[in-house]
Amino acid sequence: MVSISIKELLNKEPLSQEVTVNGWVKTFRSNRFIALNDGSTINNIQCVVDFEQFDEALLRQINTGAALTVKGTLVESQGKGQNVEIQVKDVTVHGGADPETYPIQPKKHSLEFLREKAHLRVRTNTFAAVMRVRSALSFAIHQYFRKNGFYYFHAPIITGSDAEGAGEMFRVTTLDGKNPPLDGNGNIDYKEDFFGKETNLTVSGQLEAEAYAMGLGKVYTFGPTFRAENSNTSRHLAEFWMIEPEMAFFDLDANMDLAEDFIKSVIKYILENCEDDLVFLEKRLLDEEKSKPQAERSEMALIDKLKFIVENRFKRLTYTEAIEILKNCKPNKKKKFQYIIEEWGADLQSEHERFLVEKHFKCPVILFDYPANIKAFYMRLNEDGKTVRAMDILFPGIGEIVGGSQREERLDILKEKMAALDIPEKELWWYLDLRKFGTAVHSGFGLGFERLVQFATGMGNIRDVIPFPRTPQNAEF
Amino acid sequence: MVSISIKELLNKEPLSQEVTVNGWVKTFRSNRFIALNDGSTINNIQCVVDFEQFDEALLRQINTGAALTVKGTLVESQGKGQNVEIQVKDVTVHGGADPETYPIQPKKHSLEFLREKAHLRVRTNTFAAVMRVRSALSFAIHQYFRKNGFYYFHAPIITGSDAEGAGEMFRVTTLDGKNPPLDGNGNIDYKEDFFGKETNLTVSGQLEAEAYAMGLGKVYTFGPTFRAENSNTSRHLAEFWMIEPEMAFFDLDANMDLAEDFIKSVIKYILENCEDDLVFLEKRLLDEEKSKPQAERSEMALIDKLKFIVENRFKRLTYTEAIEILKNCKPNKKKKFQYIIEEWGADLQSEHERFLVEKHFKCPVILFDYPANIKAFYMRLNEDGKTVRAMDILFPGIGEIVGGSQREERLDILKEKMAALDIPEKELWWYLDLRKFGTAVHSGFGLGFERLVQFATGMGNIRDVIPFPRTPQNAEF
Repeated sequence: MVSISIKELLNKEPLSQEVTVNGWVKTFRSNRFIALNDGSTINNIQCVVDFEQFDEALLRQINTGAALTVKGTLVESQGKGQNVEIQVKDVTVHGGADPETYPIQPKKHSLEFLREKAHLRVRTNTFAAVMRVRSALSFAIHQYFRKNGFYYFHAPIITGSDAEGAGEMFRVTTLDGKNPPLDGNGNIDYKEDFFGKETNLTVSGQLEAEAYAMGLGKVYTFGPTFRAENSNTSRHLAEFWMIEPEMAFFDLDANMDLAEDFIKSVIKYILENCEDDLVFLEKRLLDEEKSKPQAERSEMALIDKLKFIVENRFKRLTYTEAIEILKNCKPNKKKKFQYIIEEWGADLQSEHERFLVEKHFKCPVILFDYPANIKAFYMRLNEDGKTVRAMDILFPGIGEIVGGSQREERLDILKEKMAALDIPEKELWWYLDLRKFGTAVHSGFGLGFERLVQFATGMGNIRDVIPFPRTPQNAEF
Repeated sequence: MVSISIKELLNKEPLSQEVTVNGWVKTFRSNRFIALNDGSTINNIQCVVDFEQFDEALLRQINTGAALTVKGTLVESQGKGQNVEIQVKDVTVHGGADPETYPIQPKKHSLEFLREKAHLRVRTNTFAAVMRVRSALSFAIHQYFRKNGFYYFHAPIITGSDAEGAGEMFRVTTLDGKNPPLDGNGNIDYKEDFFGKETNLTVSGQLEAEAYAMGLGKVYTFGPTFRAENSNTSRHLAEFWMIEPEMAFFDLDANMDLAEDFIKSVIKYILENCEDDLVFLEKRLLDEEKSKPQAERSEMALIDKLKFIVENRFKRLTYTEAIEILKNCKPNKKKKFQYIIEEWGADLQSEHERFLVEKHFKCPVILFDYPANIKAFYMRLNEDGKTVRAMDILFPGIGEIVGGSQREERLDILKEKMAALDIPEKELWWYLDLRKFGTAVHSGFGLGFERLVQFATGMGNIRDVIPFPRTPQNAEF
């Protein structure tokens, strides 16, 4: 019973051929025009019914949301907006959708309302478009790395170590929650837990990816990661997908080159492969922003913004240079920033990053060589003894989209750093082994996938770019 | 500092050009021949050192496992086994590997020993080959679905429902493990947990994928899934990756056609793209099986076995036909089976599946139309009222590699089934909504990715085909 997709059908020559198509009713106008969609594309196929030929009871079932199989003749369309249409000979209604109770009616629904209907929202044009772009971006990512000699590495999700300190973790357990077994000291006896120790959901696959880069050369992860942080913002999820490439024999410059080329390449892929969806999403964003004051609207339309990314070189500057710009900029001097930049060493806040990207340079920015003490322990110390080979890529409207670094490959310096931060060596014995045996310069970065999807689709809330968002107090479906 | 990969280098014409290559020493023979590998391929590049030109202290650092950058001239090789080699002009040792302490020496290590060194085992030929094939299979899967009009759907990992009952689950929590908050009845007050309810790690993304198939038409998941089962076997992991396609308007026949085509396609991809690794793995398997009695050895060499899958149609038969064969087969009559098949309705065990595949048909088998009461609640009831539209694909040496079904799309029958199994409707209100609004025939299946990798690589233990295996009492690294 597999039939042709509407995406394929819309590209066919109308030669009065017989076709069978399945899909859901978007609208049914004048008892005559069914707009049918099967999810393969944002575009509908118009199915023209001669109502005198059909049973009224059947026609009454053709409501928005009903599932149909339509048989008929593919002809040139007389109407506007489509090249072809189907002159319907036969309709089967698989399942109706009572207009009194079906929530997805052909009218504007708020994104908040649709979040409560996450099992149905993909039936709207907006969410279907977002999810198709999300899928295309995923494929572009795998294709980019495959073409460039990377191997896909599945990092473990359940982890026995809490060493990276990238964020609060979720505990994974099979112990009796109410009466956990206790050891002699009255503490929980994790020896009796499933893994014989305390385990958590991973916050990053980087450390394990480093182990694999030191064997396979170039690897990347693309998997779920978790933060148990009570952040109810439009930019945070408790469960999100992350891409983490890790490359042996790459220094920070090579790392920045790769990250920039990678982002441009995957955005180019969707510009070439998702045009219909992007045109729709661009229009959606324009409509949404009409109600906003001019100053809060996007400076560029969505597709122009994506093209701008692909076509322009990202601005690269050191943290030190960025601090000079920020110290002397108007909003700093006029105390418009919430956090005033007073001296070198300050951690940059979102407001500072956005100023650099959106006001000062007006293009994506790569900041590098950050102060050691505001960055993670595994980043390579520079010769100056106070900065590390870290880099962040900052995007307009999004802020930090990539964070990466050259890794500290020197065993002695890594140990000193861990000691200073009270990270026990026995927790990371295997990570230290990578420096004991055949250590080499290596680098990598992490990219939060949902932030990329937000950027690519123009969706303002990160909960609207993942099928079933997990946030504090919310794990429905 | 990015340089050419050894894989690329080995395919170059030797024109006495200057090259720079990075990698790790596999062996260093006669103080003259360095076999260098960078993970890009199973093959090494031979680097020829004129030891009189080099400092002895430097040469002493060139041990198995040391990381080098080698500069030299690419020339035709005089030796056997390679077309090109490098006449070395310059060597940089990034990191040595003390032969006294480095565990991965150029000799045979047992797979059990290497499991304890999961952070280093990818530096062996066997694991590097397995992980490259794993990566290629992953890409082939994404490419197959993309080409066939599917959208990649990221199913949620943390789930608030325990309705499918596919297996024991891991609890995900941020509550104080020792002193959890209690409600008025003395039970744990999950309202205070991160998500405001009890949450677990997913055992399957199928139900959520169904929601997306009813909007996007054809979707697939490829993500981690979890079972908290105390199974210490060579076929079970607590954390494994699963592929779950779900298609609207597909009946069981279309589902079986897709599954067979899918498996053949991805195996064909590795035959075409992983030849060197497969040749190595085939030889490894032959060596390993030399110590086994003839009867326990594989009937076909690895690559022949993979070609056999691609070139032969899978045998399809109903459960009822399979029972007839099993009831009358020799091992059943002679009571050689642990579980004797006496009548229709018996659940098939691994021994029965293997008999059908390996002895009776000698090819992959698809069994379908199983008794309703040994299959899950969501499978579509046949007109006979006692079988469901389920299908399992059985593979030689592996057993069940795919389990799938046409889903019950009829609201009333689904509700009856849930009631009979005491599955509360309020747990799955959203799943029932899919039948209330625009329901349609739909189908899908699940494939355990690691079982496919086992089959493709000939590895006997599932712990050896995933980078960092999670099993009872084991979540190291």
